[in-house]
Amino acid sequence: MSESIYIGVDLGGTTIKVGICNVEGQLLHTYEGPTEVAKGVDSVLANIEKYVRLIVEQSPFGWEQLEGIGAGIAGFLNVRDGVVVLAPNIGFRDVPIRALLEERLAKPVKIDNDANVAALGEAWAGAGKGVDNCLCFTLGTGVGGGIIIDGKIYQGFSGMAGEVGHIAVVPDLEAIQCGCGKMGCLETVSSATGIIRMANDAVERGDRTSLATVEKIAAKGVFDAAKAGDEVALRIVARAAFYLGKAMATTAALLNPEMFIIGGGVSKAGDILFDELRQVFAKLTPEPLQRGTSIVPATLGNDAGIVGAAGLLLRS
Amino acid sequence: MSESIYIGVDLGGTTIKVGICNVEGQLLHTYEGPTEVAKGVDSVLANIEKYVRLIVEQSPFGWEQLEGIGAGIAGFLNVRDGVVVLAPNIGFRDVPIRALLEERLAKPVKIDNDANVAALGEAWAGAGKGVDNCLCFTLGTGVGGGIIIDGKIYQGFSGMAGEVGHIAVVPDLEAIQCGCGKMGCLETVSSATGIIRMANDAVERGDRTSLATVEKIAAKGVFDAAKAGDEVALRIVARAAFYLGKAMATTAALLNPEMFIIGGGVSKAGDILFDELRQVFAKLTPEPLQRGTSIVPATLGNDAGIVGAAGLLLRS
Repeated sequence: MSESIYIGVDLGGTTIKVGICNVEGQLLHTYEGPTEVAKGVDSVLANIEKYVRLIVEQSPFGWEQLEGIGAGIAGFLNVRDGVVVLAPNIGFRDVPIRALLEERLAKPVKIDNDANVAALGEAWAGAGKGVDNCLCFTLGTGVGGGIIIDGKIYQGFSGMAGEVGHIAVVPDLEAIQCGCGKMGCLETVSSATGIIRMANDAVERGDRTSLATVEKIAAKGVFDAAKAGDEVALRIVARAAFYLGKAMATTAALLNPEMFIIGGGVSKAGDILFDELRQVFAKLTPEPLQRGTSIVPATLGNDAGIVGAAGLLLRS
Repeated sequence: MSESIYIGVDLGGTTIKVGICNVEGQLLHTYEGPTEVAKGVDSVLANIEKYVRLIVEQSPFGWEQLEGIGAGIAGFLNVRDGVVVLAPNIGFRDVPIRALLEERLAKPVKIDNDANVAALGEAWAGAGKGVDNCLCFTLGTGVGGGIIIDGKIYQGFSGMAGEVGHIAVVPDLEAIQCGCGKMGCLETVSSATGIIRMANDAVERGDRTSLATVEKIAAKGVFDAAKAGDEVALRIVARAAFYLGKAMATTAALLNPEMFIIGGGVSKAGDILFDELRQVFAKLTPEPLQRGTSIVPATLGNDAGIVGAAGLLLRS
């Protein structure tokens, strides 16, 4: 019997990335092409079809070995019915993408949102390999996440579960408004956006920091300044780590996961973030709820989404 | 084919309550006898056996109709192996209760902690009947809870999931230490103990309240005073409701449940608690995460534990 393969699609606003995984979640081949959002929904779907057929043709595998296609999409989805309700960055509204792709490709198709598939990728074949119950926090422009229960993405009642970026953690007196409209969400402090905002605020109010001479502050610049001993930068990183640790303590009390996986650009800060995070988690979590639970960096980087999308075929 | 029955056991420090449920979770017969903790583990197990045999004998059902026995126990349990690791109120330590009862009764036995079985009872046959994903908060001496996912109790990695009473919700400046050793847990404010403490504090610092004349303040007394318009009591109830609502908002962002079920003595406060709770939840939860999610009082009262324990046979 020939080996089965699974294709994961990362459908972004600029590029479509596709990858072939084996049954273990190993990413064997990748291909990337333009999304061409401006040409409309049909054109985007045609591109997905084209890239999927192309990657299989260029691989040593036959089309008959392909078990199905999974796609990760940023936006509001109806996962059960395979419909993109609203995805502004690709210009989709009420597009029954699963049915349309199944028609084009004559293979099973599954979809889920980008944060969830990244979590599944890490849980399946990345940092969480072999762990059935884990939680992922992806610290990027915002804070996304996913809850993996029994090896699968947990969707909740209306498919909205895992919105870890909108756990309220910042006390009222310090809270600022989140993009979601609420005050004090984790996303306002522990995302790259939050870190940059805190740095800009510090510079504007005249704090003595090496960041004051930087023309356009990036999260990485704040980490580098912190590593070099800049007090203001150290405080900003500690603050981002503190609130993430607080959100994780809450999550541990609720879900008692075996592992927390921290990914996204901000996680590249490394030890300076993780050391603080582990200390805060240990301090704020009742002891029985932290026993055996580990906090680890994600390992798949940008590939987590493709791998997790492919994993939807096996784990949903 | 004759109807199947399921027995639920509520194993308490003073009394053992047993009940017969049908496949729908209807509680058909109950029996209650002393636990007799002082006589030791064997005697407690013998009492469980006696009461289980007795209730079936006294019922119209035959022993062969009994599909199994579930037990709810307060303490640290190893649910998977059916072992009571530590249950101080019944004097059990490392007791393989499942195996011992299966030997005595020659029927399948399941165990889970008291908060989880109460949640399962409500989800199966109480306020949550027909709802697959819900969360229960039991506001009693402490704050217990249970997470029901796909109709079953969610255990987490080491069986510690659902510790909703230990979500940290009180900001540092107001936080007091919880029994678990951490600061600001939900349990410190939204339990009967928390409400009584806040009332006693108010009286001690000389607040003008009708509670000042009460010799021993009970949670019910605080609710009654609040209903009569006592400002201080109103503030205490609002505070208990606020922090519960805040914990629920966090939970909604993570788990997106269809329903929150609020039980326990404190929930008897009724509208004065629920009105505030619903307002706070609506205010603190991002809109898409509250859509379709209801907040309802528990309906089974003290029977939730027995019903849920019986439900372990069908739902685990």
